[in-house]
Amino acid sequence: MKYRNLGKSLVAGLAITTSGSAIAAGSAVEELLKALYQNGTIDKATYELVQQAAKAEDAQNREQIREISVAESKKVAGDVVAKVKASKPDVKLGGRIQLDAGSVSEDNMDHNSGTEIRRARLFAKGDLHKDWGFKLQYDFVSKGDNTNGIQDAYLDYKPLKIRIGHAKEPFSLQNMTSSKYTTFIERGLPHVFAEGRNIGIQTVRNGENWMIAGGIFGDGRDGSEGGENNEGWGAAARATIAPIHADGETLHLGTSLSYRNIGGDHTLQFKERPEAHITDTEIVDTTTFDANSVTRGVLEAAYINGPFHVQGEYYRTSVERQLAGRKDVTFSGYYAEAGLFLTNDTVNYKASKGSYSKVTPSGENGAWQIAARFSSLDLTDEDINGGTAESLTFGLNWFATSNIRFSANYVNVLDVDGGPTAGDEPSAFTFRSQVEF
Amino acid sequence: MKYRNLGKSLVAGLAITTSGSAIAAGSAVEELLKALYQNGTIDKATYELVQQAAKAEDAQNREQIREISVAESKKVAGDVVAKVKASKPDVKLGGRIQLDAGSVSEDNMDHNSGTEIRRARLFAKGDLHKDWGFKLQYDFVSKGDNTNGIQDAYLDYKPLKIRIGHAKEPFSLQNMTSSKYTTFIERGLPHVFAEGRNIGIQTVRNGENWMIAGGIFGDGRDGSEGGENNEGWGAAARATIAPIHADGETLHLGTSLSYRNIGGDHTLQFKERPEAHITDTEIVDTTTFDANSVTRGVLEAAYINGPFHVQGEYYRTSVERQLAGRKDVTFSGYYAEAGLFLTNDTVNYKASKGSYSKVTPSGENGAWQIAARFSSLDLTDEDINGGTAESLTFGLNWFATSNIRFSANYVNVLDVDGGPTAGDEPSAFTFRSQVEF
Amino acid sequence: MKYRNLGKSLVAGLAITTSGSAIAAGSAVEELLKALYQNGTIDKATYELVQQAAKAEDAQNREQIREISVAESKKVAGDVVAKVKASKPDVKLGGRIQLDAGSVSEDNMDHNSGTEIRRARLFAKGDLHKDWGFKLQYDFVSKGDNTNGIQDAYLDYKPLKIRIGHAKEPFSLQNMTSSKYTTFIERGLPHVFAEGRNIGIQTVRNGENWMIAGGIFGDGRDGSEGGENNEGWGAAARATIAPIHADGETLHLGTSLSYRNIGGDHTLQFKERPEAHITDTEIVDTTTFDANSVTRGVLEAAYINGPFHVQGEYYRTSVERQLAGRKDVTFSGYYAEAGLFLTNDTVNYKASKGSYSKVTPSGENGAWQIAARFSSLDLTDEDINGGTAESLTFGLNWFATSNIRFSANYVNVLDVDGGPTAGDEPSAFTFRSQVEF
Repeated sequence: MKYRNLGKSLVAGLAITTSGSAIAAGSAVEELLKALYQNGTIDKATYELVQQAAKAEDAQNREQIREISVAESKKVAGDVVAKVKASKPDVKLGGRIQLDAGSVSEDNMDHNSGTEIRRARLFAKGDLHKDWGFKLQYDFVSKGDNTNGIQDAYLDYKPLKIRIGHAKEPFSLQNMTSSKYTTFIERGLPHVFAEGRNIGIQTVRNGENWMIAGGIFGDGRDGSEGGENNEGWGAAARATIAPIHADGETLHLGTSLSYRNIGGDHTLQFKERPEAHITDTEIVDTTTFDANSVTRGVLEAAYINGPFHVQGEYYRTSVERQLAGRKDVTFSGYYAEAGLFLTNDTVNYKASKGSYSKVTPSGENGAWQIAARFSSLDLTDEDINGGTAESLTFGLNWFATSNIRFSANYVNVLDVDGGPTAGDEPSAFTFRSQVEF
Repeated sequence: MKYRNLGKSLVAGLAITTSGSAIAAGSAVEELLKALYQNGTIDKATYELVQQAAKAEDAQNREQIREISVAESKKVAGDVVAKVKASKPDVKLGGRIQLDAGSVSEDNMDHNSGTEIRRARLFAKGDLHKDWGFKLQYDFVSKGDNTNGIQDAYLDYKPLKIRIGHAKEPFSLQNMTSSKYTTFIERGLPHVFAEGRNIGIQTVRNGENWMIAGGIFGDGRDGSEGGENNEGWGAAARATIAPIHADGETLHLGTSLSYRNIGGDHTLQFKERPEAHITDTEIVDTTTFDANSVTRGVLEAAYINGPFHVQGEYYRTSVERQLAGRKDVTFSGYYAEAGLFLTNDTVNYKASKGSYSKVTPSGENGAWQIAARFSSLDLTDEDINGGTAESLTFGLNWFATSNIRFSANYVNVLDVDGGPTAGDEPSAFTFRSQVEF
Repeated sequence: MKYRNLGKSLVAGLAITTSGSAIAAGSAVEELLKALYQNGTIDKATYELVQQAAKAEDAQNREQIREISVAESKKVAGDVVAKVKASKPDVKLGGRIQLDAGSVSEDNMDHNSGTEIRRARLFAKGDLHKDWGFKLQYDFVSKGDNTNGIQDAYLDYKPLKIRIGHAKEPFSLQNMTSSKYTTFIERGLPHVFAEGRNIGIQTVRNGENWMIAGGIFGDGRDGSEGGENNEGWGAAARATIAPIHADGETLHLGTSLSYRNIGGDHTLQFKERPEAHITDTEIVDTTTFDANSVTRGVLEAAYINGPFHVQGEYYRTSVERQLAGRKDVTFSGYYAEAGLFLTNDTVNYKASKGSYSKVTPSGENGAWQIAARFSSLDLTDEDINGGTAESLTFGLNWFATSNIRFSANYVNVLDVDGGPTAGDEPSAFTFRSQVEF
């Protein structure tokens, strides 16, 4: 009779238990407990304490099961990530497109208006094993031999920060800053002195707020095709430091020095368009002249404070002549620019590289920047009458995203003295749509 | 004595339990139960009911453990997918290769036979953030400056469906249909009137069965190099609608209108090979003549019913002359084609774009299509004697897969009147192997 | 009183239990056991045995929970991998960069020194569906029309091992071995006889230690632009076998045969620089002469034993003349080379292709190889005075990794008789930095 009652109470208890969503590690024990309590085998204290033990068990079990699950999941996930990583190509494909439109006022000379693809580049870059890297970049906008379109084409040995191949010679702030990231659509007039890329070997050392780079280089992408003289060679070095570099405030100081022995037919030419590429009429041009070697120097300075930046560079270039009786000549130039973001943004200065990088807008609607620049270039000395030019440029930039940029420039050539187009002082409106990927 | 027996029975029970593969949440309880039952502390009913409770527990535990595991696994998996997604390049690499072989019968003029790479293109395209996209496509088969190989080079702002850059001007059905997807190896003769790609800004609006596109464009990829005149500019618009568009039946109607102001040296030339590119001898050619502006119009119609399609376009082009005393001239042309799939396939018409896209074979052995086309072109008017031509083409296509296509065409130039090669009426067999990736 | 004691002991037990880190499936049972034991309901034997059962349970539970977790994790992980795989591009992007520097001693003729990008290639390759594949490779180092930079441009139908498109005609061991994998920086002089790539259709059959390939080909990448003659065509076949091919020892024997019908203007020219590309002054040159067809044959042999290899090829080329009264001419050449790895490495010979592939260094510090080659070429016969040349080359290779290779060669032209530069016997030091990706 007692047993029958017991049976009933168990049925009820069982019902409750099995419907319980908790891990019922103790439910059978629970049943047994009830039974033993009811038939007097154990007392109330024991009953309740064991019940508590069962409850504690439930919580513990759930927690520990979760721990095991997470541990096992993570293990498996680790394998997945590894597998994916292994299957992913080491080679990153990227590039840029720069689409320009411009209207250039005709002055003494013809300056035409129109549209052009300014740059259309693809690159492949990647890491090989842990110590090596490479980059191959081509600009589909180039003339003459296809080879002329090759931009970066180098391999890196990372442990020693050595770069072998076709890459920029370290020289000047605006030159080392990618055309994607310059403040204005075109670099300032004195950029004419930059040597650009050559095949060579260079190395860099840097700290948090300084860098020094140097290398030796050949001449061009091709071998010395024909001609009776060997290819030229050069050496270049650049050092920069940011004595102030904190709290959105940066002071940049730098200098570059470059020597080049002129090979081939021992000639040299410096010429420059107005700071609007859409016209191909030069405003200054030394025309080709004899040269044995050329030595270049640059002094760089920049100050950044939040949305505001100002920067300037002074260039000096001396040419040792080749022909007897010709006096060595010295050319020079400089530019000064200032920019201000109207949004809560700033230029992206990399102290470890001593140059600017990508602007990443802080807000939904992108970053807006206004800027102005004054450029001056003097290509006249001794028997060389390349002319002198001064130019003023106003710019408006909209960085829609970190990949998309639109720029509008108004370029006003203030003064051109001497040179083949003396007195030709055009002005231009230029627009650029740029995508980087 | 009783206890000793109990001990034995327990040993046995224990053996069974520990060997059991189920989650033995109840096995200890089980042992205890047996013991209590055997020593009479609990009755049979209790024994069995608690046993049931233990069993229920097992099932419940297993289920709940599984639930926890799945939940935890999914969490971790989510992180993995995110990590992978982040590390995946946004840039898709693709392209096409078109390998041609052809035999052209010599007629009055030289028409040579041989092989050529007709197109070899690579492109990079992708999305940037959510609103922007881009495409850069290059054709390694091109002459002159590398720049000439640039095909698509644009960026898209998706919310407004605005495209900025070097892209096709909206014009004509066969022109807007990729060379990968045209019915025949070469487009019909009147394609000579298509302006192709220019740098500009265009936008499109479309619905399920209609589209309208328009834009304004500059002239070519390069700036106006030299010359004393500005680059030309143009405007183009195209509208299409599919009044019938359901159940494998489609009726397409469309029209294009294009105006272009001729810049540079104010000249124009229309010339066309037979519909076999392997020969570079033109059958009609206006040679260069003075032009101030050119206005083009096209009427398009197509009807698709299952494996069958028919389509035609009529072109009219008027040229406003530049030189005094020269009468304006008007040229025209048209083509009509019909195609029939011998397999259970159909052309892939995109009503939202008003053009054809990739054929994806329904069967294992690919899709087979036969087709015929009649083309007519008249480049003679007033003082311009470019000649008139009529041509008949028969085609056989095998779409091995959605990426691989082989085509054979027989082109028969029926009649050539006037023009520099009057009476030269060659015929040609051409073959193409095509891969799209 | 007894019960009170029991209560105390339970409290203690409970404390221990809940603090236990193990899955305490048995702790409640434990408590109950203690209680029953202490109040004499069960005997010591039962107590201990049930305790054991509880312990066994713990272990079992943990193990089984782990199994469930792993199973569930794996399921989820499987989905992730599938998702990732699906999202991965089918197209592999790869390429090579070869950066050369060289110093060539001037002799009778001008031979200049300098740097050059020897090759800068990108390729896209992939599989389409299961049966098809493709490759498109471009060399940015090329002259003239962009089209000239196109290297591989073909599609493969794998089930029949048929290749359609622009690819190498099967011919000679050093020719079929990629420029990335040749022992020396430049191939031996007789490479002048290799036809290179043309558009055609070829197929290959092979076994573990043999291959035979053959195909028919057109002429060049472009259609027969202008000229009054059709493009030429050719047929080529190559067969190789490795009678010894085991335990790091390989004997390779091969032969190639090629016939070509000269099209276009029916002329031919064989000319070759010294085995240093940096100079573009040829040491042997037949200059252009009339030709109707050319037949070429090669005998190949190579023996590899661990780090050592020796190989040689003999070439014979007969030209059927086009102009009346001109005697057919026969040219010939051969080279023999030997190489030795100073590290525990070997050349990577692929018997199924009958050519060499990538060297993968066995050690941390890469693989070092020294090598020497003697080359001979005779381009003088009958009325053709192209000259004869003999050249000796010493090479040092460092395979830093399977992707990075540096080579230094000393090339000494021993003897040049006849030809336009008779007696001009320059020597050269050349260096190459190479990255493959």
